[in-house]
Amino acid sequence: MLFKTLTVSEARQRIAEIITAAPVECVTLSEALGRVAAEDINSPEDVPSFTRSTMDGFAVIAADTFGASEGLPAYLRVAGEVLMGRVPGGALNAGEAWVIPTGGMLPEGADAVVMVEHTEDAGPDTKGAEMWVAVLRPVAPGENLVRRGEDARAGDRIIKAGRRLRPQDIGLLAACGANSVKVRKRPEVGIIGTGDEIVDVGAVPQPGQVRDVNTAALAAMVEACGGKPLLFGVVKDELEALQRVLSEAVTASDMVLLSGGSSVGTRDLTLRAIEALQQATVLFHGLAVKPGKPTVGAVAGGKPVFGLPGHPVSALVVFEILVRPFLEPEVSQRAPLRARLKRSLHSAAGREDFVRARLYVENGELAADPVLGKSGLIATLSRADGLVRLPLDTEGASAGEMVDVFLL
Amino acid sequence: MLFKTLTVSEARQRIAEIITAAPVECVTLSEALGRVAAEDINSPEDVPSFTRSTMDGFAVIAADTFGASEGLPAYLRVAGEVLMGRVPGGALNAGEAWVIPTGGMLPEGADAVVMVEHTEDAGPDTKGAEMWVAVLRPVAPGENLVRRGEDARAGDRIIKAGRRLRPQDIGLLAACGANSVKVRKRPEVGIIGTGDEIVDVGAVPQPGQVRDVNTAALAAMVEACGGKPLLFGVVKDELEALQRVLSEAVTASDMVLLSGGSSVGTRDLTLRAIEALQQATVLFHGLAVKPGKPTVGAVAGGKPVFGLPGHPVSALVVFEILVRPFLEPEVSQRAPLRARLKRSLHSAAGREDFVRARLYVENGELAADPVLGKSGLIATLSRADGLVRLPLDTEGASAGEMVDVFLL
Repeated sequence: MLFKTLTVSEARQRIAEIITAAPVECVTLSEALGRVAAEDINSPEDVPSFTRSTMDGFAVIAADTFGASEGLPAYLRVAGEVLMGRVPGGALNAGEAWVIPTGGMLPEGADAVVMVEHTEDAGPDTKGAEMWVAVLRPVAPGENLVRRGEDARAGDRIIKAGRRLRPQDIGLLAACGANSVKVRKRPEVGIIGTGDEIVDVGAVPQPGQVRDVNTAALAAMVEACGGKPLLFGVVKDELEALQRVLSEAVTASDMVLLSGGSSVGTRDLTLRAIEALQQATVLFHGLAVKPGKPTVGAVAGGKPVFGLPGHPVSALVVFEILVRPFLEPEVSQRAPLRARLKRSLHSAAGREDFVRARLYVENGELAADPVLGKSGLIATLSRADGLVRLPLDTEGASAGEMVDVFLL
Repeated sequence: MLFKTLTVSEARQRIAEIITAAPVECVTLSEALGRVAAEDINSPEDVPSFTRSTMDGFAVIAADTFGASEGLPAYLRVAGEVLMGRVPGGALNAGEAWVIPTGGMLPEGADAVVMVEHTEDAGPDTKGAEMWVAVLRPVAPGENLVRRGEDARAGDRIIKAGRRLRPQDIGLLAACGANSVKVRKRPEVGIIGTGDEIVDVGAVPQPGQVRDVNTAALAAMVEACGGKPLLFGVVKDELEALQRVLSEAVTASDMVLLSGGSSVGTRDLTLRAIEALQQATVLFHGLAVKPGKPTVGAVAGGKPVFGLPGHPVSALVVFEILVRPFLEPEVSQRAPLRARLKRSLHSAAGREDFVRARLYVENGELAADPVLGKSGLIATLSRADGLVRLPLDTEGASAGEMVDVFLL
């Protein structure tokens, strides 16, 4: 077999070409947080559906207040009161003011609201029959109100297809009456551990054995990306058993992650098991990245299958840079943050390096302090907040330089 | 009643004084993502529990390779092979090498691993009985291996109390065999909408009515912070009804959010309903912040009760700056990011301003472009990625200045 090493961006490109969009499902608004909008969502109506006051005060015709001051107030007749949630019981005429609460519907004829703080009670008229209000400051047309359709007009796109819905988006959808939303189905990601030395987290490892770190950590990663992890347990280093479980996982999932197999023998086994899948094509075998070099990428029946390195840090870094972009495209397309590097880092040209780092704000800017340690040490990743990227074409970065960082 | 206006940090302080830690519960590792560790977690054992190779190659005594080169290799006798997951079947003596896979247990006597790429097969000896390997480069003691306890020593603190568990933390816990974790119970947050003009999201608002945006958005916010929203529906502006629902909510929840009541009348109603609660103390009534001024903070039976503004943007901003710190203390204690402001902003001294902004990376630094718009417009928050903070003692910030931003 040809040994195909790709760069991370080449690998992403190859996978992007074969991956298909997840099917669509309809969920209620209370289930929609963190889900990805399957299509553009347009407001079916004007929001708000009527012009509302944003202050407690008096609805007026702005022109009636022009020139008003504390010394020379504009006197308006209080001709009515707007009640919350009700249509005003009439129209407002020149020289009139209507009492209006915050959120109240503007009476026809009114075009502004005077805050109650800028008025004075002018008492009843001499006959005791009519109430008057003294307006102490002028208002401009449109002041202290939200116009019909100002939040969203009927037909406006309010959510773009592909957006992961945040609380404020849920609020906007609620405002527009979108009680259910079409979203992408949560991708189901099959996770298979491999390795003769790997035992369950609950087991006591015998000398020579280690616990299955990758299944737990990768499942949590998938969950954090909005996917559903499907666990297929740990498979011993036997081709037939691995083929059987892998084939089951491909059938049941939208994407499969194999992990383990850091030794040449197990890597070969993983590769052979992937090649034996129906309709399988190996896209790459080796990534120009550190950590994560021995990664395998393949497609089987239109579904991506990744053979991740066995070292937990390598597996999680590859997940972050290669797998996550397909689970959370919106997040991954964001430009990286920039941080000032606190310690010089060496790297080899022709290889992208991702270095674990603690991130903190110092002198008003982001600082990245590399957490050094072997990629076999998961504790180093638990101490890190992000990954510093050293690009393909550099041989490292010096302390004090600004570098790209990705949040973990 | 005394009208007590506090700054945001005073308000946080007052609430922090009365709030108690959530009760503790035990969850399995697969349920632990995003949960908050209730206590320091120490590793019960050395991880890894034995010294492991990080490469495919040969376990050796480093001193046997000193001075080796391509021209003058060190010849070592291949005395055994380490199998994955097994204890090596003997000890390694001077002049010997054992075949070892990545992850294999180092035989007693060995103190380094030579990568297979730095060796050559030296063939059997003349009698054909023994295999020999030529080592082409020297290794230092400790090279290409992870020592017993290098990830975590027995008794080492691996997770600090109060940490929100991320996938890499789950991985570390798995490595240490922590199959279950003591975490804080997810706080249950009661949410009550108020207002005569508010109708359910599913309803068609009549003229003068608007849909209940705040319940949906606040519930999503609570969920995003790892809490459980408990919905108590929308209550009309009637003191008795509000008192009854509020009292139910306080009993059932760990914290209560009332929203709505932007008009003076409803605000008074909210305040009166809160004051009528058993063991209630109003901590503040008014915040020196924009948006969010008409916020009420109280404690009833040791539980915080917040009366949030009715305008959705105000309610969500106050949630972000005042409520979230108690649901996600770890996140909220982080220093804000710094971003370059793209447009001048005015603010009043003596008041903290939080301005919605789109965030993006430009010329290698974070840029914040304010999204302008009234706080009644939820669409403005949906277009924003973060909040720019203008501190109490400033009167604004000019385009080009660096400002504090918080991610939304």
